[in-house]
Amino acid sequence: MVPHLTTALTGPLLDLEKRFLDSETAIEQWLRGWWLEHTPPFYASVDLRNAGFKLAPVDTNLFPGGFNNLNPAFLPLCVQAAMSAIEKICPEAKNLLLIPENHTRNQFYLQNVARLATILHHTGLNVRIGSLLPDITQPTTLDLPDGQKLTLEPVKRLGTDGRRLGLAGFDPCAILLNNDLSGGVPPILENINEQFLIPPLHAGWHVRRKSGHFGAYQEVANAFAALLDIDPWLINPEFGVCGKINFHERTGEECLAANVDTLLFRIRAKYKEYGISEKPFVIVKADAGTYGMGIMTVHDASEVKSLNRKQRNKMAVVKEGLQVTEVIIQEGVPTFETVDDSNAEPVIYMIDRYVVGGFYRVNTARGRDENLNAPGMEFKPLAFETGCLLPDAGQAPDAPPNRFYAYGVVARLALQAAALELERGAP
Amino acid sequence: MVPHLTTALTGPLLDLEKRFLDSETAIEQWLRGWWLEHTPPFYASVDLRNAGFKLAPVDTNLFPGGFNNLNPAFLPLCVQAAMSAIEKICPEAKNLLLIPENHTRNQFYLQNVARLATILHHTGLNVRIGSLLPDITQPTTLDLPDGQKLTLEPVKRLGTDGRRLGLAGFDPCAILLNNDLSGGVPPILENINEQFLIPPLHAGWHVRRKSGHFGAYQEVANAFAALLDIDPWLINPEFGVCGKINFHERTGEECLAANVDTLLFRIRAKYKEYGISEKPFVIVKADAGTYGMGIMTVHDASEVKSLNRKQRNKMAVVKEGLQVTEVIIQEGVPTFETVDDSNAEPVIYMIDRYVVGGFYRVNTARGRDENLNAPGMEFKPLAFETGCLLPDAGQAPDAPPNRFYAYGVVARLALQAAALELERGAP
Repeated sequence: MVPHLTTALTGPLLDLEKRFLDSETAIEQWLRGWWLEHTPPFYASVDLRNAGFKLAPVDTNLFPGGFNNLNPAFLPLCVQAAMSAIEKICPEAKNLLLIPENHTRNQFYLQNVARLATILHHTGLNVRIGSLLPDITQPTTLDLPDGQKLTLEPVKRLGTDGRRLGLAGFDPCAILLNNDLSGGVPPILENINEQFLIPPLHAGWHVRRKSGHFGAYQEVANAFAALLDIDPWLINPEFGVCGKINFHERTGEECLAANVDTLLFRIRAKYKEYGISEKPFVIVKADAGTYGMGIMTVHDASEVKSLNRKQRNKMAVVKEGLQVTEVIIQEGVPTFETVDDSNAEPVIYMIDRYVVGGFYRVNTARGRDENLNAPGMEFKPLAFETGCLLPDAGQAPDAPPNRFYAYGVVARLALQAAALELERGAP
Repeated sequence: MVPHLTTALTGPLLDLEKRFLDSETAIEQWLRGWWLEHTPPFYASVDLRNAGFKLAPVDTNLFPGGFNNLNPAFLPLCVQAAMSAIEKICPEAKNLLLIPENHTRNQFYLQNVARLATILHHTGLNVRIGSLLPDITQPTTLDLPDGQKLTLEPVKRLGTDGRRLGLAGFDPCAILLNNDLSGGVPPILENINEQFLIPPLHAGWHVRRKSGHFGAYQEVANAFAALLDIDPWLINPEFGVCGKINFHERTGEECLAANVDTLLFRIRAKYKEYGISEKPFVIVKADAGTYGMGIMTVHDASEVKSLNRKQRNKMAVVKEGLQVTEVIIQEGVPTFETVDDSNAEPVIYMIDRYVVGGFYRVNTARGRDENLNAPGMEFKPLAFETGCLLPDAGQAPDAPPNRFYAYGVVARLALQAAALELERGAP
């Protein structure tokens, strides 16, 4: 099912979806040509927001979790795309080491790891899971809610001078990271030159910045908008950046307030241009991966100047206790999609340059101008029933295959931006 | 649904399917490595026969019809595989000309052409259909039973000295043949050097020989059998060849009878080795593409010496009235699969090196030792419900995902054989 789109102003978005549909051949050709010049990330997921008047990515994850939330019917598509990706990166690989996040108690996440291992296994790889957790000192088998078992094994350096990474009795040709390196590169992952490390280390949040991604996205969106002769704003969330923020010491607040003000001004102008009666807002979040933490919805610059202690504490640290010193101020794109009266946002999954599925993140407790992926808050995944590859010109622009196609197109623009980021950030 | 397998002797095949399951990683690795050295055909379909004690390909089509018989749920898989194939062969292609067979009255075939055009369109190509039929002198739109329309346009030479092939107002970068060239290469397809011709002309039945294919298949089957430590006979149909046959003048009958005798002797020995109580038989068919014509089931060498006029006439000509002068004598593999008491055989479809689906050819009128794809005889297609990519080790070896995986493996061995054929036959 497709969530009921409750916007009162569907005009511009239906126009956009129709433009995508009409331009399918041109879009696919353009993308194919683009990928001849650039290397896609091994995998990615993109959070989108569909405002009815605007459809834009708001976050791109290069270590995607949530593969378990995809429709199992899309599994063959995942396997085929992974075969293609492996063929490009390390065709001769036999053993692959998958390194997950250190959340051994997050059952949802562990199911994602199990699903990823299944996909990779079916491509013809011996897959084992290596844990970076110091308390995993021997193979540890965890029971998953769906009856599966997952064995985590301690990673160790192997070979002469410990030049390789592996497990006891397992020397992989390739290492797939599903750990976003928010806390920096652990020493055990350093100086690995003989094995394929996928994605490269500089895809980690210790290096990556959301502003870098959305800067690259803006270039891509402009090129794509020129191809389709549309206003890039319809697919591009505007943003500003502030460095040297210290929420505890209340330094950098001026920069933040000024950026919020400027951005709200620009959004207001656009809303006026399109006759949109929504109240503009911005999202303030850590410029380095947030994992759903340290995110704030702001409707007025004054709000960031009058943060109370609790709010400041909340913004000051993200995953693994890291201090936030740089923030991105991103145009808020309200979600106008609801499922059973709960707000929902689509998340699109890609392997190599292929869209392999998606789901709706449905959150009963959050507003349509808020982040739906908050820590400690369970969202309900709703798998897309149909794929994102097969628009049907015979149906309305907002029919599921057509809406999902539009989602797949915008997600692939974000994938292009990620490819540019990785290309430019290469050491 | 999977047709009920009615064999009394499921032992050896269940063993084989189990071996495939247990060796999935080794099989996929081996295939991946093999394709690093060889180029897969753009597309292919393979007719398999599952005898309960043996699973073997009996025909490999490099201009596959029947894409319309696949489960529509596999369409995204077809599109993704076609994207990958196009990316390899002609990534910069924008316009593709599809040249079908000259069967404008075969509604089933025309639906295949429409399905192929849909798949290719979704990869991001402008697709138009060029007809070789002399009576298509202007764009001709045909109504298909499912409500679709298909427009055939006359092909013509374009450009300086007519060096290119296209349609009025349509200059393609790539030309995809879905015409098996049984009648030879029409002059209008000769000397095309500036455009991608897919598959190459020497994939046509004017050059190709079934014996060449099964000779190559035998090499592949032997290598694969060594990998899995199995008897290659379990997956390889044995064969002999006779050239210089003239069914009208009754020349070459001695060669035919001798080959039938030798082959039956070998089959008998194998049946004895495996304790199979079936009656051995061979299939005699034209060595150059038969399109289901000129095929004969033979249980004893005496049968080929006592053909009556009707039988000789039937064997003497195949598609487009071509005379048969070379025949292949192939080990008959009885099908033990039935659907509603009708005999059935699986047909597996591949694009590039990926299995994208399959269906059962169900024939109510034919015996399990007969060809099920006879002209003038309607077979009922039964699409596979699940794919061929995702064996499930938790289920029995003959559960649908596992049986279909085995089919996909053997079909890919035939695809390898086709790749060798094309490689060696390149002018």
